[in-house]
Amino acid sequence: MGPIGSQPEPLGPPRTLMCSHGALVLTMRITTVDVVGRAIPFDGAFPMSYEDHAASDHVFVRIGTDAGRVGYGEGTALPWFTGETTAGMVEVIERWITPSVEGRPVHEAMAALAAFDESFPNAPGATTAVDLALLDLEGKRLGTPVADLLGPTVRDSVPLVFVIPALNPADAVERAAAGVESGFRRFKIKADGDVGGDVERINAVLDVLPDDGTLRVDANTGWRDVATARRAVAGLDSTERIEYLEQPTAADRPEAMRDLWTETGVRVFADESVHGPGDLERLGERGLVAGCHLKLAKTGSLRGLRHLATVARRHGLSTSPVSAFGTSLEAAANLHLAATLTGMSAGCELCMNLVAEDVAEPAFDFEPVVDVPTDPGLGVGLPDSLFE
Amino acid sequence: MGPIGSQPEPLGPPRTLMCSHGALVLTMRITTVDVVGRAIPFDGAFPMSYEDHAASDHVFVRIGTDAGRVGYGEGTALPWFTGETTAGMVEVIERWITPSVEGRPVHEAMAALAAFDESFPNAPGATTAVDLALLDLEGKRLGTPVADLLGPTVRDSVPLVFVIPALNPADAVERAAAGVESGFRRFKIKADGDVGGDVERINAVLDVLPDDGTLRVDANTGWRDVATARRAVAGLDSTERIEYLEQPTAADRPEAMRDLWTETGVRVFADESVHGPGDLERLGERGLVAGCHLKLAKTGSLRGLRHLATVARRHGLSTSPVSAFGTSLEAAANLHLAATLTGMSAGCELCMNLVAEDVAEPAFDFEPVVDVPTDPGLGVGLPDSLFE
Repeated sequence: MGPIGSQPEPLGPPRTLMCSHGALVLTMRITTVDVVGRAIPFDGAFPMSYEDHAASDHVFVRIGTDAGRVGYGEGTALPWFTGETTAGMVEVIERWITPSVEGRPVHEAMAALAAFDESFPNAPGATTAVDLALLDLEGKRLGTPVADLLGPTVRDSVPLVFVIPALNPADAVERAAAGVESGFRRFKIKADGDVGGDVERINAVLDVLPDDGTLRVDANTGWRDVATARRAVAGLDSTERIEYLEQPTAADRPEAMRDLWTETGVRVFADESVHGPGDLERLGERGLVAGCHLKLAKTGSLRGLRHLATVARRHGLSTSPVSAFGTSLEAAANLHLAATLTGMSAGCELCMNLVAEDVAEPAFDFEPVVDVPTDPGLGVGLPDSLFE
Repeated sequence: MGPIGSQPEPLGPPRTLMCSHGALVLTMRITTVDVVGRAIPFDGAFPMSYEDHAASDHVFVRIGTDAGRVGYGEGTALPWFTGETTAGMVEVIERWITPSVEGRPVHEAMAALAAFDESFPNAPGATTAVDLALLDLEGKRLGTPVADLLGPTVRDSVPLVFVIPALNPADAVERAAAGVESGFRRFKIKADGDVGGDVERINAVLDVLPDDGTLRVDANTGWRDVATARRAVAGLDSTERIEYLEQPTAADRPEAMRDLWTETGVRVFADESVHGPGDLERLGERGLVAGCHLKLAKTGSLRGLRHLATVARRHGLSTSPVSAFGTSLEAAANLHLAATLTGMSAGCELCMNLVAEDVAEPAFDFEPVVDVPTDPGLGVGLPDSLFE
């Protein structure tokens, strides 16, 4: 192979061996990269601590090869977290990433993408979309689920967390009751920073949770400081079934999370305070939190997210994988990761039920427990119609 | 699959698909774990900063499966670095690891080994031996070289570093000249802490290196403090071709390495100061060194070593893989790792030429550049006679 950055060699025929279950592909080169940006409306209002938003911003990627195999990827912009936009993700992929991966074998494309990621800041949605498509291809090349490329698997199904937005108490209770009715036992509720309303909503939901139910409370930094957060916790009827508080206070003052944890005895997990492994190292070294949320937007690649999880594990921290507003394709990536996680907290937050249109196929049913896909690659793809 | 720690299910027949190049194995269970300890003499004296030792201590593992595939692993005790011994490694594997992996599919065995590694301190040689054998099996199961399980590969051959012990100047020059004659350009020389003798030896070797030759100097902490190390560097005829100083000063005072680097302008790499990713995080965060040596004895697993390399990369540090006194089997593991490393320093230190008997097969020739094995698994195994 040539060094990364050199001109790709001209395309030759793929080297394959025939096998009883189809062609076993030894090398395959990337011939096409198709990209489409898409805003997908939420399925109903989704109030939380940030401004209400009506849609989530996606980029979808389809990578073709000379071996006929196709890889699919998805990236989600989280504007208030990373500054990315749909148009920006599309431009980054078309202008910089596509020329560096076209014509290359998959492993060289992966290395080229990693090099791009090191040199280009704040594009995790764009790099994730291409990264997932390349891992999908690599899994298909090897005939194995992506989980096997991330490490030894420790589970073949994953419990899901049922997420309740920051609705008024009556509507929140209605959602929670529907979740309980569907068999869910692991819940998350959003707080919007209005302590009185948050306490009322959380207490109302706790009231309808079964004894074996758990609830993680996500204020998305909305409680700002320890005093406010302590007031919120003091207002709760009970903290017994609170799994943890997720990023209750300001992202840039992580000491507040340790103070809150120490004072209330309720575990605190970081989300917005961690944009990558370096942040988590510093939190872990100082013992500021009990765990961390894992999102592709924090690393820009699934192997990078696996690295983040290993950093967490070394520091004794639990982890919660989240496919933030992704379709079933991003959900599949999170399931493959979750399959390899020791120290995962109660469950995985998959959000395909929150978007009005789950364009991936096959789409997962939103159930209390979901099986990790066993087909080669990610096990979930995209319809060609999406790219027309 | 059952949770880790539960009783393994009874063995069933392996699930396989037939393929034109042999059986494609979908699942395989571990049926046997054979272990043998072995002290292998060095090929001639190998003086360095620690006490002279005449042999290196190895444990070899052969893992059989119900699918007929066999995996091979090797662990090396570095008593002065980890406290392990041959008898201890054998006992750890036979008494604790074997019962937790026998009867399990490979991925469950890997997870069980990782759990053992988290709970049992200071046994990196023992866990490495089993880890490599399991990765060898996983690669064979998927029909792919182990490098593909570690990340995207960036090279398919690896330059080797020619290592010169702390001999008297005339003998050191003779070794160096032989290396140059064989085409080597990347050298390492041991210092034993006697500054006068070290300077004389290094200058003599620099004198016979070609203009494009580089030399890393490894004092194994022997120069102790900045003042002594500075005196050694000041005695060198030139530092132009010095690649870096490897762990010149005491392991527990890493600030000395930054001081030396700053004062002399010669880069300093850590070895003994880093026993795992946590150590490297702290060095990297404080900018104390320019790079780090990678050894399986630091992590107890190849995926763990890949994690250490990623920590290094995030902190802007270069890395040098070293198979410390291993045979061609441990060398193969390092080559698969090196195939995935961005930011690798000049080359990889493989030590199969330093042991009197390279029991692995096929054994690598000790050449200036070695190809990464392309056969499924590690691409290097062990003869059955070793286990009789």
